[in-house]
Amino acid sequence: MSTFDFGQETEKLLKWLGQYGKDPNGGVSRFLYKPEWVEAQKALEKYMQQAGLLVQYDDVGNLFGRLEGSTYKDETILTGSHVDTVKNGGLYDGQFGIIAGIIALEFLKKEFGQPLRNIEVVSMAEEEGSRFPYVYWGVKNILGIAKREDVEGMVDFDGIPFTEAMRKAGFHFRPEGSIVRNDIKAFLEVHVEQGGVLETEKKSVGVVQHIVGQRRFTVELTGEANHAGTTPMGYRKDALKAASRIICSIMDLAEHYGDPLVATVGKLETTPNIVNVVPGKVLFTLDIRHTHKDVLVSFSDEVTAKMREIAVNTGVGIEIDMWMDAAPVPMDTGIVDVLKRQCEKNGLSYKMMHSGAGHDSQVMAPRIPTAMLFVPSHKGLSHSPLEYTDPCDLGEGVKALVGALYELAYK
Amino acid sequence: MSTFDFGQETEKLLKWLGQYGKDPNGGVSRFLYKPEWVEAQKALEKYMQQAGLLVQYDDVGNLFGRLEGSTYKDETILTGSHVDTVKNGGLYDGQFGIIAGIIALEFLKKEFGQPLRNIEVVSMAEEEGSRFPYVYWGVKNILGIAKREDVEGMVDFDGIPFTEAMRKAGFHFRPEGSIVRNDIKAFLEVHVEQGGVLETEKKSVGVVQHIVGQRRFTVELTGEANHAGTTPMGYRKDALKAASRIICSIMDLAEHYGDPLVATVGKLETTPNIVNVVPGKVLFTLDIRHTHKDVLVSFSDEVTAKMREIAVNTGVGIEIDMWMDAAPVPMDTGIVDVLKRQCEKNGLSYKMMHSGAGHDSQVMAPRIPTAMLFVPSHKGLSHSPLEYTDPCDLGEGVKALVGALYELAYK
Repeated sequence: MSTFDFGQETEKLLKWLGQYGKDPNGGVSRFLYKPEWVEAQKALEKYMQQAGLLVQYDDVGNLFGRLEGSTYKDETILTGSHVDTVKNGGLYDGQFGIIAGIIALEFLKKEFGQPLRNIEVVSMAEEEGSRFPYVYWGVKNILGIAKREDVEGMVDFDGIPFTEAMRKAGFHFRPEGSIVRNDIKAFLEVHVEQGGVLETEKKSVGVVQHIVGQRRFTVELTGEANHAGTTPMGYRKDALKAASRIICSIMDLAEHYGDPLVATVGKLETTPNIVNVVPGKVLFTLDIRHTHKDVLVSFSDEVTAKMREIAVNTGVGIEIDMWMDAAPVPMDTGIVDVLKRQCEKNGLSYKMMHSGAGHDSQVMAPRIPTAMLFVPSHKGLSHSPLEYTDPCDLGEGVKALVGALYELAYK
Repeated sequence: MSTFDFGQETEKLLKWLGQYGKDPNGGVSRFLYKPEWVEAQKALEKYMQQAGLLVQYDDVGNLFGRLEGSTYKDETILTGSHVDTVKNGGLYDGQFGIIAGIIALEFLKKEFGQPLRNIEVVSMAEEEGSRFPYVYWGVKNILGIAKREDVEGMVDFDGIPFTEAMRKAGFHFRPEGSIVRNDIKAFLEVHVEQGGVLETEKKSVGVVQHIVGQRRFTVELTGEANHAGTTPMGYRKDALKAASRIICSIMDLAEHYGDPLVATVGKLETTPNIVNVVPGKVLFTLDIRHTHKDVLVSFSDEVTAKMREIAVNTGVGIEIDMWMDAAPVPMDTGIVDVLKRQCEKNGLSYKMMHSGAGHDSQVMAPRIPTAMLFVPSHKGLSHSPLEYTDPCDLGEGVKALVGALYELAYK
């Protein structure tokens, strides 16, 4: 398969698909069920048909292109990703997984003819939660786990109800009790890394072994707002001093634990936030991620104890609220091995790694054997019009996918 | 003078004066040249007249009540404070200094008759800067150092020009080249502490030796905003981590220096301030105060060096902007001694201390021998309807003032 330029073809199709929802000053905004979303799905539908795939939408608008298997007709190998974007996103996040799948299927069909098992590429309706405050609408409907009542009351930023938006785009809720497909035997998602590890380590492809678990906390520190001039240091209950000591200790502990643990204090608000008043209150968020539940738990426990200790020592009150606790999701070791072998067989420069971000694959993985392939994100940039991946790396990612699909569907 | 209840009388008059500008739900708002300000000055004018003082306004509305001296007719001992308040302030800040002066003059006149030198109580027009972005308008006009051009373009929160507000209240600019009075030989200001030191140390009176100098900085840290999940700890340039390390080191250094140094990071803003994004930028303020210029400078220098070092070590850019540099103001040692002796003579529970807040006295002191007396602020509360000082302490403050005025004007 070395004569075909996968990278060039991928880049061409990414630019083509990126026209749907193109922002005036660069970037792409393609929100679930918006006209540009409908146009993108229609364009993909047409392209898939011309490539000789059997094309079908499900009830909610997930689009499937199928290369029918000759032998195991009730077994399907699925690949793809999501077609929606964040506001003013780039050309790669989501749509690269769809384009990679289409190119792979076209290539396999031409090169090797009909597979033993069905291979399908999916353009999933939604993953980002950019229009409505709901994520994974696409994959959750494929798996039959999306709940109608979760979205029924929802409106978008313009006040348009979810249901109305869906109907206008030509889709509807999956009928209650309808049969969920049980033919999907594997799911492979190709995606950009959205981080800088592959580029820094000069690797073209990442084979994902885990998607990290996440815990998110809000921490509120309550001290005493006092006059900055007339309150000696020893009289103060400075909530920002306490917060600073806490953040330092979180960072120290995170560095002590080492990769893949990450801990982020992303949001911090000080009250009253006035130059000459000692801060009486500080509210901050803490986001902790790790590939293994036990480490996530032990780090959270250590950090929580440390926060309480510092609060006592600095004389401020503390409230810690954990409002997100998502377990890590391991990828299927069998499919991970297939991907790894393909990287080796094709002489690709690859790295076994984890995903620090959430993906459709993490919803899929507990139910269907799943794995992911990453390609580098230049400078780690993500959710930005500046997203970029070198065409050579795009091509390497597609090659690994082609090899894995061949392994899974032709043997 | 022990038979007269100075405390009870003071509290009575504070409540009376606090009616002018009383807020519906408690507290006082009396802004420069507003109708309630005019009413307060008129009420004070009437009260002073009834107390047998010679009453006079200057051009801009500072109100003086004079007890004429018999011998040194060109020498005046001045006491008093400002009549304006912050928005929804309390019964003590500013107006206590005026009431204390009036009660002292009434008492001295009754008890000892005519002094050798003139004694005047002044109700100064403005100190807080609550209506217009300008402070010390009252005292600066007494000293002839207010500049017409500084306020001429100013408007208040309702768009009313300074000049119009002043004219409406019946006042005008001090004519160019008019003579500044040179008879004031001493100024004594009685004020609430606005901090919790006297109460904590169970003292009734503070004799102020210095008003602190202040330096204010804005510090901007520039790192890199990155995805909280996909950016390993070692790849980050976290501006909030840098800020936290800096704040800890400022606090450590401030504690190492010890009283009277205070350092406050009162305002802090994080960008983009999102739970799952590593902060790319942090902007914070730093307020440093000390009674001695050399310490203020050496602390600033050490902190600045430390901030730059931490910025380098955490890989973030740093911009440090010092936008305020007010030198400490020592009180006149001669008058400080008079006050101290009066405290001892009257058996008052007193403390030699400094002022961490700004006062009219700091503008007066470089030009006229000046000193201040503090009384406790309950819980250190200031600029609040909850300001409170025990009447016994108010009385002790007035007693010390009476004794000092006697020393300075009758001998």
